[in-house]
Amino acid sequence: MPDQDDKDSNMETKSLTSSDSQRPNAPYIHKISIPPKQDILKEFKYTLKETFFSDDPLRPFKDQPKSRKFVLGLQAIFPILEWGRTYNIKKFRGDLIAGLTIASLCIPQDIGYSKLANLSPQYGLYSSFVPPLIYAFMGSSRDIAIGPVAVVSLLLGTLVRNEFDPDTDPSEYLRLVFTATFFAGITQATLGVFRLGFLIDFLSHAAVVGFMGGAAITIALQQLKGFLGIPSKHFTKDTDIISVMKSVFGDVHHWWNWQTIVIATSFLAFLLVTKYIGKKNKKLFWVPAIAPLISVILSTFFVYITHANRDGVSIVGRIDKRINPPSLDKIYFSGENLLKGFKIGIVAGMIALTEAVAIGRTFASMKDYQVDGNKEMVALGTMNIVGSMTSCYVATGSFSRSAVNYMAGCQTAVSNIVMSIVVLLTVKFLTPLFEYTPNAILSSIIISAVIGLIDYDAMILIWKIDKLDFVACMGAFLGVVFKSVEIGLLIAVVISFAKILLQVTRPRTAILGKIPMTSVYRNIGQYPEATKVPGVLIVRVDSAIYFSNSNYTKERILRWLTEEEDNLKAKYEPRIQFLIVEMSPVTDIDTSGIHAFEELHRSLQKRDVQLVLANPGQVVLDKLYAAGFPELIGENKIFLTVGDAVHTCSPKIAHDV
Amino acid sequence: MPDQDDKDSNMETKSLTSSDSQRPNAPYIHKISIPPKQDILKEFKYTLKETFFSDDPLRPFKDQPKSRKFVLGLQAIFPILEWGRTYNIKKFRGDLIAGLTIASLCIPQDIGYSKLANLSPQYGLYSSFVPPLIYAFMGSSRDIAIGPVAVVSLLLGTLVRNEFDPDTDPSEYLRLVFTATFFAGITQATLGVFRLGFLIDFLSHAAVVGFMGGAAITIALQQLKGFLGIPSKHFTKDTDIISVMKSVFGDVHHWWNWQTIVIATSFLAFLLVTKYIGKKNKKLFWVPAIAPLISVILSTFFVYITHANRDGVSIVGRIDKRINPPSLDKIYFSGENLLKGFKIGIVAGMIALTEAVAIGRTFASMKDYQVDGNKEMVALGTMNIVGSMTSCYVATGSFSRSAVNYMAGCQTAVSNIVMSIVVLLTVKFLTPLFEYTPNAILSSIIISAVIGLIDYDAMILIWKIDKLDFVACMGAFLGVVFKSVEIGLLIAVVISFAKILLQVTRPRTAILGKIPMTSVYRNIGQYPEATKVPGVLIVRVDSAIYFSNSNYTKERILRWLTEEEDNLKAKYEPRIQFLIVEMSPVTDIDTSGIHAFEELHRSLQKRDVQLVLANPGQVVLDKLYAAGFPELIGENKIFLTVGDAVHTCSPKIAHDV
Repeated sequence: MPDQDDKDSNMETKSLTSSDSQRPNAPYIHKISIPPKQDILKEFKYTLKETFFSDDPLRPFKDQPKSRKFVLGLQAIFPILEWGRTYNIKKFRGDLIAGLTIASLCIPQDIGYSKLANLSPQYGLYSSFVPPLIYAFMGSSRDIAIGPVAVVSLLLGTLVRNEFDPDTDPSEYLRLVFTATFFAGITQATLGVFRLGFLIDFLSHAAVVGFMGGAAITIALQQLKGFLGIPSKHFTKDTDIISVMKSVFGDVHHWWNWQTIVIATSFLAFLLVTKYIGKKNKKLFWVPAIAPLISVILSTFFVYITHANRDGVSIVGRIDKRINPPSLDKIYFSGENLLKGFKIGIVAGMIALTEAVAIGRTFASMKDYQVDGNKEMVALGTMNIVGSMTSCYVATGSFSRSAVNYMAGCQTAVSNIVMSIVVLLTVKFLTPLFEYTPNAILSSIIISAVIGLIDYDAMILIWKIDKLDFVACMGAFLGVVFKSVEIGLLIAVVISFAKILLQVTRPRTAILGKIPMTSVYRNIGQYPEATKVPGVLIVRVDSAIYFSNSNYTKERILRWLTEEEDNLKAKYEPRIQFLIVEMSPVTDIDTSGIHAFEELHRSLQKRDVQLVLANPGQVVLDKLYAAGFPELIGENKIFLTVGDAVHTCSPKIAHDV
Repeated sequence: MPDQDDKDSNMETKSLTSSDSQRPNAPYIHKISIPPKQDILKEFKYTLKETFFSDDPLRPFKDQPKSRKFVLGLQAIFPILEWGRTYNIKKFRGDLIAGLTIASLCIPQDIGYSKLANLSPQYGLYSSFVPPLIYAFMGSSRDIAIGPVAVVSLLLGTLVRNEFDPDTDPSEYLRLVFTATFFAGITQATLGVFRLGFLIDFLSHAAVVGFMGGAAITIALQQLKGFLGIPSKHFTKDTDIISVMKSVFGDVHHWWNWQTIVIATSFLAFLLVTKYIGKKNKKLFWVPAIAPLISVILSTFFVYITHANRDGVSIVGRIDKRINPPSLDKIYFSGENLLKGFKIGIVAGMIALTEAVAIGRTFASMKDYQVDGNKEMVALGTMNIVGSMTSCYVATGSFSRSAVNYMAGCQTAVSNIVMSIVVLLTVKFLTPLFEYTPNAILSSIIISAVIGLIDYDAMILIWKIDKLDFVACMGAFLGVVFKSVEIGLLIAVVISFAKILLQVTRPRTAILGKIPMTSVYRNIGQYPEATKVPGVLIVRVDSAIYFSNSNYTKERILRWLTEEEDNLKAKYEPRIQFLIVEMSPVTDIDTSGIHAFEELHRSLQKRDVQLVLANPGQVVLDKLYAAGFPELIGENKIFLTVGDAVHTCSPKIAHDV
């Protein structure tokens, strides 16, 4: 400790005058900058811009002639007009292969996911036709594959079933699904148009990981029905693990059908093996991608030959061959069903959005291009609005299919167009082939698809990095698995918010010491070699000081002082004369915060300790001056750095820098 | 700009190796401290302690024998046992005078506030007897004066009237009042026992100022009824300014009673003059304090003599002489009224709490003693629970009476005991005297009391300091005045929360430059003399990086880089090679934040810019190491200060320090 020997010599009480900082021989001390009067309108415009237009969407429009602005505006709404101009045959080859691959993957998934949403198989296929087409014209992600996804299908199925029973009220049920899809689209488009896209950032990554994992398990559990061949009416309607386990192993286990189990198990094994192959050798990514379609073909052929359906193996049955019948007249535009659909639509729309935006961002950062979140939301919203009028239910970006799309070498959203055309042809000409497809195979396909949503690695990483994040993750996970999708979602949102509130209520504080041989002051908890300056207590407050934490901050600083004084008294060392508050991390302050500082100053005066501030930022300085705080404590008590403040408070100590 | 001449010479691309920082002649560069493994349990305990026990309530109990602990525990619940031991006759003199003064002020106010709550006059007096007595034993503030207050009376009156009409259903109405009072007490005590006192900090100072101001105007408007002599049944039930004005000047203006108006106006003038005298000369504080009682006595005498009540001057009438009849049996403990009372109780309890805690803190900081917020809540809760069983409605600390108490020289809570005994004697022996008291005088007293709640100075200061705070303040104010008390309250809470959320969604960022003649780097917006380092962009992020802002932060940093690069290109200056992120204000990071940094690193790699971090705090460093981030960007890319980072990135520039 280089300053040990100075400790007792500089303890005479000294008051700070401005001439102190002008002493000859003293190191150069730069004046703290007194801010000019703040311009309210400018400040307000800045806040508005950073909140809603942080991505600077009008940048390319600047200084352009009107006609060019019009073209740019059109391109902004339909990005296809921009990238379409440089589209070529080479890109198309990539898109064609990728489109065919994801089509082969999506057809069996669509049929399966329709069942999760308690809908007939054709609705899944419909949702893989219209929405991807519209997205291709309006979306800005090049890699996302659009269509129905497992989690949203489950969520929609659960929420709508709370209102109407799909078995007894199929038409009402369907109408509410379209209504919810319509409002999901409205929600998404509205968020985009009003540039409120940042709202989805409030669902934390950890909560999403937990929710997805829980939803995956719930979906897999639901598949036990098809997997074991248990008829729907004998299976529980609840989705929590306990009800499902009771249902499976309870009084209905005599419904188990061995032929079904054999088919399901063997194809699940096949799918998992292909999945493993694709994981081991990235070049063979197409193996797991086409495996589901192969399974469907093989199992359908097998059932058709063996007439296994007569032995209790349930089959998909006849699929409606019409192409996307109009459904605008089915949407509820009045009455209490409007409200129900609206509520369900908001929830489903938000979750679908979260998934699509996460996918868009992930792949954009892998290929280093920008996805405009708000524009993306308008695209997703439009496709769901149009979808709801053409017999589709909520579509969004699918994790698994987007990854396949990426690996198959897609270049643009044209791969989505290819996929949607393949789906169209399938609906028109190939649906009769699916009549004998066993439901069990769909269960196997869904199980093998959703287990990819359980992201162990991410969970382990979350545990390592942030325990509170892990609590949010597990809360959402267990909520979904043991209770229901809605409860899990609610837990995820509540914990995410609680975390934000905790942060702003209880900011961290630290005692600083001088790092030897430098003039740098750092947390003595982090740098044990840092030494305290005798007679001076340096406290850093690690947060903006707002009404929510101003009282705590004040009391915490006083507590540090009390503890330090008790400490010094026990060691018979000289008492604290200066309290320096390092303000660098204090990014903002409000009226309550300034009140707290005034009270702190008053309390310190009573204890004969002088309050000194180091490095307040511009915003904070503005407000301190507006409130007349510098005059209260003395303008020469505010310094540019902690080093300067210590120099002036306790000049002898500072010499060994 | 001292480093201008170096600008072009140091632009060769250089990679950072650890030997760079060991160069001879280079200034001393202190190693960033790699944190030891974090102890989860310790971390968790720390968070728990700072959240719930930040005031260290068990500190005095440490290392004490058991018997002493018991005494300390008892004293913690009943502070009177502690301060009572040093109580003496000198203190009692102060308390006696103060107690008599606030009693003279509270008796007319109590009668008036009962009317605000749509209750008979005795209930206000009851509420000034039992609650202050209990508070005196359990509370820790020495200056607060307990009893019914205007805002809570109005709030309770409005909320309960939404359920039952006090004119047609008086007994149901009264029962719901007691139920609400009971649950207000339960709410307050629960918050205290579970140490959730920090929840009231979520109502910002600005919002409270606006709400109080609005409530004051609403209350004053309500008094126009009594002031003009308009019978209750002809007056609007709405509290917003437009309805009241319509009611006053509309079809009922022929109800105006000139005798009433003369009495009310003259006494209001008298009260305002005394108030002015008290403000001008602090020694005459007792003049406005006893003026209300004098007005009551004079006006009562006048009415009694002149029989003005026969000319339409409405009078208080006979007051029940019983002392606080038990009311436990009147509280609803079941049915839907339980739920109604519960909801109203929570709202009224929270508002009462906010007022009491604000008063407690204000006076404690003026006399420099500590008020324990959580203990205070238990005291307030207990007094309201007991109050609800003895015919009292919600009592709390009164701003005006507490100020009088303080100025009259109160020493301890004994002044509350004196006041409550005076009120008891009044109820027992003096109520017949109030029979001829004109209601108009009560209106005058209330008007002159509540105008003190409109805190212009605070509003002006809020406008000066923080515009967003002012919006919250005005929102609450206008909400109360133009709509209703509940709406104003709702606006206040919503804006307060929105402010917190905005803060964590859109953190500020700044570009740093070097302050001449120092090695200090500061915001070039704040310090225009600071110079940028060629080839290096230094960005400071002013907030913890969480899921709610991680994406924005990443994109904002990239936008700074793009803008700077465009700038440099236009000036044909060398391009940016290093991006230094100053992490001092980044007090925490979560998994989403680390993801964002990984994406930032990837984007920068694509642009051939190196990412360098300066001064990450301990918590952040822990998490970065747990996530393996230092290995990703290179461990030698993390520095203790921006200066060190610049030294290593661009050594020539740094020489002139």
